[in-house]
Amino acid sequence: MSHRTLIRGGLVVTAADELHADVLVEDGKVAALAAHGSAAAGAWTADRILDATGKYVIPGGVDAHTHMELPFGGTSASDTFETGTRAAAWGGTTTIVDFAVQSVGRGLREGLDAWYAKADGNCAVDYAFHMILSDVNEATLKEMDLLVGEGITSFKLFMAYPGVFYSDDGQILRAMQRASGNGGLIMMHAENGIAIDVLVEQALARGETDPRHHGEVRKVLLEAEATHRAIQLARVAGSPLYVVHVSAEEAVAELAAARDKGLPVFGETCPQYLFLSTDNLAEPDFQGAKYVCSTPLRPKEHQAALWRGLRTNDLQVVSTDHCPFCFRGQKELGRGDFSKIPNGLPGVENRMDLLHQAVVDGHISRRRWIEIACATPARMFGLYPQKGTIAPGSDADIVLYDPHAEQVLSAETHHMNVDYSAYEGRRVTGRVETVLSRGELVIDRRQYTGRAGHGAFIHRSTCQYL
Amino acid sequence: MSHRTLIRGGLVVTAADELHADVLVEDGKVAALAAHGSAAAGAWTADRILDATGKYVIPGGVDAHTHMELPFGGTSASDTFETGTRAAAWGGTTTIVDFAVQSVGRGLREGLDAWYAKADGNCAVDYAFHMILSDVNEATLKEMDLLVGEGITSFKLFMAYPGVFYSDDGQILRAMQRASGNGGLIMMHAENGIAIDVLVEQALARGETDPRHHGEVRKVLLEAEATHRAIQLARVAGSPLYVVHVSAEEAVAELAAARDKGLPVFGETCPQYLFLSTDNLAEPDFQGAKYVCSTPLRPKEHQAALWRGLRTNDLQVVSTDHCPFCFRGQKELGRGDFSKIPNGLPGVENRMDLLHQAVVDGHISRRRWIEIACATPARMFGLYPQKGTIAPGSDADIVLYDPHAEQVLSAETHHMNVDYSAYEGRRVTGRVETVLSRGELVIDRRQYTGRAGHGAFIHRSTCQYL
Amino acid sequence: MSHRTLIRGGLVVTAADELHADVLVEDGKVAALAAHGSAAAGAWTADRILDATGKYVIPGGVDAHTHMELPFGGTSASDTFETGTRAAAWGGTTTIVDFAVQSVGRGLREGLDAWYAKADGNCAVDYAFHMILSDVNEATLKEMDLLVGEGITSFKLFMAYPGVFYSDDGQILRAMQRASGNGGLIMMHAENGIAIDVLVEQALARGETDPRHHGEVRKVLLEAEATHRAIQLARVAGSPLYVVHVSAEEAVAELAAARDKGLPVFGETCPQYLFLSTDNLAEPDFQGAKYVCSTPLRPKEHQAALWRGLRTNDLQVVSTDHCPFCFRGQKELGRGDFSKIPNGLPGVENRMDLLHQAVVDGHISRRRWIEIACATPARMFGLYPQKGTIAPGSDADIVLYDPHAEQVLSAETHHMNVDYSAYEGRRVTGRVETVLSRGELVIDRRQYTGRAGHGAFIHRSTCQYL
Amino acid sequence: MSHRTLIRGGLVVTAADELHADVLVEDGKVAALAAHGSAAAGAWTADRILDATGKYVIPGGVDAHTHMELPFGGTSASDTFETGTRAAAWGGTTTIVDFAVQSVGRGLREGLDAWYAKADGNCAVDYAFHMILSDVNEATLKEMDLLVGEGITSFKLFMAYPGVFYSDDGQILRAMQRASGNGGLIMMHAENGIAIDVLVEQALARGETDPRHHGEVRKVLLEAEATHRAIQLARVAGSPLYVVHVSAEEAVAELAAARDKGLPVFGETCPQYLFLSTDNLAEPDFQGAKYVCSTPLRPKEHQAALWRGLRTNDLQVVSTDHCPFCFRGQKELGRGDFSKIPNGLPGVENRMDLLHQAVVDGHISRRRWIEIACATPARMFGLYPQKGTIAPGSDADIVLYDPHAEQVLSAETHHMNVDYSAYEGRRVTGRVETVLSRGELVIDRRQYTGRAGHGAFIHRSTCQYL
Repeated sequence: MSHRTLIRGGLVVTAADELHADVLVEDGKVAALAAHGSAAAGAWTADRILDATGKYVIPGGVDAHTHMELPFGGTSASDTFETGTRAAAWGGTTTIVDFAVQSVGRGLREGLDAWYAKADGNCAVDYAFHMILSDVNEATLKEMDLLVGEGITSFKLFMAYPGVFYSDDGQILRAMQRASGNGGLIMMHAENGIAIDVLVEQALARGETDPRHHGEVRKVLLEAEATHRAIQLARVAGSPLYVVHVSAEEAVAELAAARDKGLPVFGETCPQYLFLSTDNLAEPDFQGAKYVCSTPLRPKEHQAALWRGLRTNDLQVVSTDHCPFCFRGQKELGRGDFSKIPNGLPGVENRMDLLHQAVVDGHISRRRWIEIACATPARMFGLYPQKGTIAPGSDADIVLYDPHAEQVLSAETHHMNVDYSAYEGRRVTGRVETVLSRGELVIDRRQYTGRAGHGAFIHRSTCQYL
Repeated sequence: MSHRTLIRGGLVVTAADELHADVLVEDGKVAALAAHGSAAAGAWTADRILDATGKYVIPGGVDAHTHMELPFGGTSASDTFETGTRAAAWGGTTTIVDFAVQSVGRGLREGLDAWYAKADGNCAVDYAFHMILSDVNEATLKEMDLLVGEGITSFKLFMAYPGVFYSDDGQILRAMQRASGNGGLIMMHAENGIAIDVLVEQALARGETDPRHHGEVRKVLLEAEATHRAIQLARVAGSPLYVVHVSAEEAVAELAAARDKGLPVFGETCPQYLFLSTDNLAEPDFQGAKYVCSTPLRPKEHQAALWRGLRTNDLQVVSTDHCPFCFRGQKELGRGDFSKIPNGLPGVENRMDLLHQAVVDGHISRRRWIEIACATPARMFGLYPQKGTIAPGSDADIVLYDPHAEQVLSAETHHMNVDYSAYEGRRVTGRVETVLSRGELVIDRRQYTGRAGHGAFIHRSTCQYL
Repeated sequence: MSHRTLIRGGLVVTAADELHADVLVEDGKVAALAAHGSAAAGAWTADRILDATGKYVIPGGVDAHTHMELPFGGTSASDTFETGTRAAAWGGTTTIVDFAVQSVGRGLREGLDAWYAKADGNCAVDYAFHMILSDVNEATLKEMDLLVGEGITSFKLFMAYPGVFYSDDGQILRAMQRASGNGGLIMMHAENGIAIDVLVEQALARGETDPRHHGEVRKVLLEAEATHRAIQLARVAGSPLYVVHVSAEEAVAELAAARDKGLPVFGETCPQYLFLSTDNLAEPDFQGAKYVCSTPLRPKEHQAALWRGLRTNDLQVVSTDHCPFCFRGQKELGRGDFSKIPNGLPGVENRMDLLHQAVVDGHISRRRWIEIACATPARMFGLYPQKGTIAPGSDADIVLYDPHAEQVLSAETHHMNVDYSAYEGRRVTGRVETVLSRGELVIDRRQYTGRAGHGAFIHRSTCQYL
Repeated sequence: MSHRTLIRGGLVVTAADELHADVLVEDGKVAALAAHGSAAAGAWTADRILDATGKYVIPGGVDAHTHMELPFGGTSASDTFETGTRAAAWGGTTTIVDFAVQSVGRGLREGLDAWYAKADGNCAVDYAFHMILSDVNEATLKEMDLLVGEGITSFKLFMAYPGVFYSDDGQILRAMQRASGNGGLIMMHAENGIAIDVLVEQALARGETDPRHHGEVRKVLLEAEATHRAIQLARVAGSPLYVVHVSAEEAVAELAAARDKGLPVFGETCPQYLFLSTDNLAEPDFQGAKYVCSTPLRPKEHQAALWRGLRTNDLQVVSTDHCPFCFRGQKELGRGDFSKIPNGLPGVENRMDLLHQAVVDGHISRRRWIEIACATPARMFGLYPQKGTIAPGSDADIVLYDPHAEQVLSAETHHMNVDYSAYEGRRVTGRVETVLSRGELVIDRRQYTGRAGHGAFIHRSTCQYL
């Protein structure tokens, strides 16, 4: 007979509903939900009963944008798949979608296989992959079709980083055309990197080397421009478009205008753009380097536009773009030249809590919290309803969340493999209590009970918004 | 022990999910959902088992805009609460929100009590009321608070029909201010009736008396203008706004612009605007009178904008504005003077089917069908999750829907008390098979098994989008 | 032989050109312009030679919005046609277009004749009339045609002041339709007065009686709303529209959107909106009353939008809305109740100087100064090229303007019949030196040499932008 | 004593005015204007008197976009400076601004000197130069400053034609930054050539080789995209922008949006976009090749947007982009491959007449005709008031235009050195009668009386709109 877990007495919060219901898990999947106190619920027995009284019972988070072990700027992101997925679990995230990278001049297959190898046997929670296209050509266009068949159904392109990840508008158009045929979703880093690199060079020539200049040269107008351009190219190709890490009000406006026309255009933002700003980049003594990422942090005024975008659904997803580099030894590579600071922030562990804080602060509703952090990323990347919700048939990736517990975010207590927290000292209300991944306890009342290798690769279907 | 109904083998479609799940009903409420084939589902027993194999299991429809027995233009809408709610049931709608009417110079209470009396003991399915404010003044503003406490949480105002329902901008502003304080939702008939009446008079003076002139004088620009004005007044008042029966592309644009700003502005459209056009108004031999309603039908080009609005969520609800008048004896009152044609169309029975046809035609997804026809109207008017979904704890208002059956809409076969169908001869795919209202069979495999008086008044909470 | 005046050595500035040219006046009209130093210029002789070396030679100002002797709120504007036109001349304005007023229940003719009588024989410079429609009905619509034939080619309507000047949307539509047929131009006071009066009543009920509350209740959104509504009604009528005294950024946006569509929609602003703000309305000790006018002064941030609108030509005209009331005895009527403060500001003497200051400050170019203050109002109201420019055939209404002289604006030195200046103590660069009206010296090197009765009524043709 | 010409009895039409005035020319310059019948006019004597009774007296046209003798696609534009400027004179254009070309890898000086040499001693009317930047780098950026000092104050960049004229966004940004410092005006060919070249390759691969495919691959969205991008780059650089040959409604919308913000962004269109369409490109038997130019002709619906843009001043200039290639031997190079058809159309002779036809057709007013064809291009490129108007001090570049004469445009009668007319057989009303260039008769009552070498190089000042 099957193994059964029963979660009793909690408030089940999904993107759609807030239900006073018990949840029955059979063999790693959600078998049934029944109203508290119903005869049906009363009749249930189980091997393990979790008392969720006073707690939220929520789907495990889906972080659709992480970069574990990513080689960048002569170093590598400091979280391995092992440390990174463990930290994810601590933070209530039970699925990550990481980015496999094609190297210029090499095939997609080679890059993907390398990432399979990095993750295989090491993950605490489930994972999937997007593919970064660094070299669009006839051969790699054909490989895209194969990858879609293999569950790698989204492809990231860069309008920035010339010489590294950059694709020109012709390459972008070709990849979009291919995606419109094979069901793939194009993800775009939308910044005009060609223009930005001119401004970087000019700033350095003027002696402007501090981290804050990173934010000044990567101009709002150049994010908005690239966003607009990507949308127009997608219209020409007849393809959908997902813009990653939107940070500027003007970029949100481009998305909103496209969506008003009914175009299949989507936008993601990240906690750092919602909670941090250029004030952080301007912290003295090179501390600003901790906050260097691209798109960059923006002046505080942009935060309101991002929150509004999340409420109006002009932005649909909050991912972390988790890409940690230690301050010592890694961020420090850019002392005296902000352009040499590795780009990226840690965050995979903080996302669910920060967004719950947004609920407490009144920016979003509870259901919207789950929608932008669990359900929509799952639908967007072909994982729903296996992931992203609590419903009969779904994977039992479930978090018991204490909405009243208080905690202080800090590098001293976090589980990410990085020597600083971008949110050091920030007090938030709400905390992950217990985490199940496919029915197994990974976090049990604030104890880690998972293991490397439990996490499995997930074969994704295509975007469910098309 | 409780009475149990089990619905087996169907595809449960809600606004949020499509689930292969069995549904267990206990004592008129949904007790539990369990995955097909799960041990939990296998263990269930019931008094009555409905086989839903090959069917959709959907929430009963919520029609948030009906006018049973409405006195208008010297006659009355031809459906009583008895005939109208029975027809609703036949069409898969298990909740209506009708409009109680304040008469000029009288109190809200008096009007509401009259409508209570009309409905009480007569309805086949559940019902609730909005209140039409025809005379905003100090006394009626105070009554609004009382009504909110009584479950009448929405108030309709008219910018058209001077001398009948019309409120001036000052009255509108006062009512909105009051609603912003008591949680009420202002519903608006947005047409500049003062200007329209000038055009009506001029058209008649020119001898333009045919029904099609009804469509010509009630200009798109005057709907858009009133929509814009209502939005601005709501901003001044700090209140939300729900615009009823939006028919023009330019009005949708006003809603979209407001929503892009994050304003709590909502829009409803109706099947007649999605499926009919000025071509119908121009039908010869006074047949166009069948299609006279306000806002009027628009040129066909507007339909695409309405569908797009439903997809982009700039429109959130499809209601019927069901207000039937027989062609013979009623619509005929306007022969020789289109302004004397009673305004209104029958439709309460056709909504769920027509919108399913839109699924078949690719305009909307299955989930969006349920969202615009069940879940969102329920949330909008404080009925969710009691109504509008299938979830543990919800009322067991459930429809077994055959998505493959074909039918031809016709006055000969419909159950509304009106001598014509606005969709006469239209072939659609999909049909209601069986309907439960709070667990009781109202329609059982295409047989009416309900009764007048089963339907109960529902005390509504306030709008859940605020 | 004709009487000749020669203006030598100046820089002739018109809306189109800056010319180093001599100007020859024959019999009250500009006969010719010739380049400095040309043989043609050298050959000229004249009865009177004015040396304009170092001066601008500009067209006399055209102030298209004044209210001399206007009865309002139980008192009357303190400038008569005699004092007001003399002050205009001192300020370099040689044509005013004042407003004749129809009283409710009376005909246009009666109102117009009353205004003819007030002005006749009293004016120092030329004048024309717009007609205020207070009571649109069949009879007055017919009178509009007669007035157009008589040179009264523009008609002002009010969306504010219910019970006094207010027209409802039906009356507005009818007047616009009539104007679209007879070539008249509808001028609109665009504020939603019905809604504003609710806010006024509520403010007073809360004890908010100070002048600053005048600015708070007449909300930006209600100016923008009325502007939008007027535009839509004009579209329905197929008529042009001129919106008077635009003060709010959001209203400018409505005009800009309409003009982008190519609609014949025009906007006027006034110096008080460009140079003053709600800070003035908030001056203590009831001093704010000096700045009470409608539309009201706005927060400072709106000024930038108005200047931008003047540069982008979304605003075309700067008039004064000159309507002076003495602080003592007139403005004081509203102590303890801001709604009783007579609405209006003095300004006819200050407009040319303030706008020249805007040239000095870099807001507009010299040519644009002349365009918005002389040429465009003349074209808009059918006076060009008789008025508004210096060209062969034009009336010799010419100002010699010293661009370097400094002056301090003050009630002690101004010539308007009012006991305060809205710009008291403001230092500006530039000053009128000499003024000709149809070739006659009205101001001669800062001496008044004119006379009441010189100014003649000007029969206007229709708007020249249509 | 000076040589004098007197032009009597005509209607002087400038951008600003329509004057019944005589024009006195002394020594090649306009000395004076005097009202018909004035004593001043009556006193004038002259060596030569031209009777302009019944004629318009207008400024000679300024065509700000020509390509005489341009090497392109392995051949050269068929009009030399001699034949091209003679044809210009026949068409009432007395100033052209042609494009000197920098070759990739060479300096600006070398290119400019080559163009000086081509034009020197050959021109029938005056000429000036823009500079095409094909290779933006440190050296050429410095040369820009020198050219501005030399009267070459505008610089054209291309977002299309990779490998030939194309500049990437970094080069564009640098050139814009330089222009913002030295007063230069950046002119932009705004099409996303990188994306277009992908579509060209794909179309040819599909066997789509006909001229009409030229119009299909150069998509409206890719013109609008590049226009938007150029505007954003100009904002980053703080520089003005002039977009050449705007052809698509969506591109006009980008300009309008920028101008509404008050940005110094300008747009030019050409007669071919106003009068021709993709219908011409689709003419059979390769006749479509006659109409191949870039940006391409658009579907007819775009014409209304261009006319509206000219009326709303979102487009300011109409130039010809005159770049003629004979059908035989030149256009034929692209048989079987539309991408090999030399890009360009003849038009320098037809512009003034076609735009007068637009006056006759009611698209624009007479004054606007002169504004877009004479005054604004002169102001835009630093030539006003020497060129572009008739005012004391201006060059006597004057056309006597017969507004009633009819003519049929045809290659048989035109004077351009090209074997076809893009407007073959088109009947227009209005014709150039007589042309003066700096006071000398170039066309005398439909006889060519000019000579190669009369035309002089004009040293331009910087853009007068900044």
